[in-house]
Amino acid sequence: MDEFDLIEQYFRKGVRPRDDVLCGIGDDAAIVSMPEGQRLVIASDSLIAGTHFPDQTPAHALGYRCMAVNLSDLAAMAAQPLWATLALSLPEPDADWLEAFAEGFFESAAGADVALIGGDTVRGPLSMTVTAHGCVEEGRHVTRTGAAIGDRIYVTGTVGDARAGLDVLLQKRSKSASNDKLLHRFLYPSPRVTPGRQLAGVATAMIDVSDGLHDDLGKLLHASGFGADLELALLPISEELLQFAGADAAVGIALSGGDDYELCFTISPDHESQLERLVEHWDCSATCIGEVSGEMEARWWHNGELHAVAGPAFSHF
Amino acid sequence: MDEFDLIEQYFRKGVRPRDDVLCGIGDDAAIVSMPEGQRLVIASDSLIAGTHFPDQTPAHALGYRCMAVNLSDLAAMAAQPLWATLALSLPEPDADWLEAFAEGFFESAAGADVALIGGDTVRGPLSMTVTAHGCVEEGRHVTRTGAAIGDRIYVTGTVGDARAGLDVLLQKRSKSASNDKLLHRFLYPSPRVTPGRQLAGVATAMIDVSDGLHDDLGKLLHASGFGADLELALLPISEELLQFAGADAAVGIALSGGDDYELCFTISPDHESQLERLVEHWDCSATCIGEVSGEMEARWWHNGELHAVAGPAFSHF
Repeated sequence: MDEFDLIEQYFRKGVRPRDDVLCGIGDDAAIVSMPEGQRLVIASDSLIAGTHFPDQTPAHALGYRCMAVNLSDLAAMAAQPLWATLALSLPEPDADWLEAFAEGFFESAAGADVALIGGDTVRGPLSMTVTAHGCVEEGRHVTRTGAAIGDRIYVTGTVGDARAGLDVLLQKRSKSASNDKLLHRFLYPSPRVTPGRQLAGVATAMIDVSDGLHDDLGKLLHASGFGADLELALLPISEELLQFAGADAAVGIALSGGDDYELCFTISPDHESQLERLVEHWDCSATCIGEVSGEMEARWWHNGELHAVAGPAFSHF
Repeated sequence: MDEFDLIEQYFRKGVRPRDDVLCGIGDDAAIVSMPEGQRLVIASDSLIAGTHFPDQTPAHALGYRCMAVNLSDLAAMAAQPLWATLALSLPEPDADWLEAFAEGFFESAAGADVALIGGDTVRGPLSMTVTAHGCVEEGRHVTRTGAAIGDRIYVTGTVGDARAGLDVLLQKRSKSASNDKLLHRFLYPSPRVTPGRQLAGVATAMIDVSDGLHDDLGKLLHASGFGADLELALLPISEELLQFAGADAAVGIALSGGDDYELCFTISPDHESQLERLVEHWDCSATCIGEVSGEMEARWWHNGELHAVAGPAFSHF
């Protein structure tokens, strides 16, 4: 048994038991039992050192994050998370690093009652790929394609914080209680699992905000075949981001900053009162920022003027 | 849309349609429909440049191989392959490399009627993680744990060829028609999908031979809680390996060489005649090399003597 087999044993100890796992880590493959009447939902996202996170990212946060970003993808389909595999590539097995990584990973998994059922641990440049599995009732999944003209466009929580938090991590900004909150938003994304589940059969289209609200909403609109009229003043921006960047720059960060892992979704105006009742049970807000239009572009109202893709507030584009 | 989005579009073109894929590549996650009365089987294996393959491995073979090794894991559980995700990390998008890689990948996938349903393409050191999904009838899956005393131990095809083929790839050996066959065995493993499926409910335990027959059979026996008496003279060794290494050295390579992706399985003596009928429809042989014993070790008969783990023929240990 080599050192990497030992690592697998180490991960095995943290595994949360689930009755539907017939064969977990330690065989050629895992065997699980799907709940009846459900569709299987599968998401797979990789984090690569240097590309998706800077070297100074703590191991605990990496473990947490690689699970969380996949839970966010499942949430965006309105799926209930069930199981995950982890492919971990490590230059050198380091016991302290592994302990912190595993703790973060299992903390994130436990938050959504997800069981680790397999994967692979190999020597190589630092990277991790999680494949997460969930289920959704037949006919109630939500894709990017169902938005209709007149649907209201919502986003959960606040956007732009994680991008500012990355600057804090890179020490471009000083430490403060406010900046620490931004840093935490980068290191520990909160996948919107409960909101995603409750939007099954309610939202007409949904996407998770990983590449920035402007880009991701653009993908949803493109997939649905429509555009949108949006109001820049309605963007949900945190106090911390306002302090960090000032009001004008905060808008640009909120639109173009990535790694938020909030949900952006559309619902029919008929369902808005139902949404209000659902949101009471969420641990995040849901803010209407505009509505779907027949024009094939996203246009933002800003200081009484309508801007197409590029505009003064988001020179990023 | 950046260059990596373009790569995903490129892969999307090669996707084989399957009726059970409700939502494939291009959304936050894939949605598929599980066949009724079946268990879900999930395997995930990574290939990392420098660790699992040398730099000179052709892109076509890498694409083929990363799919094939996961199909082999599914076969070892007696599962029918269905869908796969691919996480591909690439230093630089290179059109020729990608075209060859994708061609190899889809060739391997098509051979088992597997649909690519998602994944991630990112910038980073060259590596690929495939997560393969399959199904097996309730109660008919085969794990490593079911071997019983007296069960016959079989291995499909021939073992050791791929290890010799790696030497050919590394140019430690000259080119010849015979050595080309060994090279092909390393570059293009044949996952034993049909044998694995037909052994559902027949084999008592099964594993795929990826780390070498001796190691992998050892894992199966350890998981089942038994040992084995084996006959070295019965090892299935190809003519090409005999030519490559000579009779004595070939035995050591057959026992300890990795990357064979054959199946090693145990069956009750009562089922041997059934097995004979099944094998007629396979494109590989199945050779009995010994039987499960109550001793807690694997012992090999060699020239009339019984050897425990280490022996003259496999000084590797």
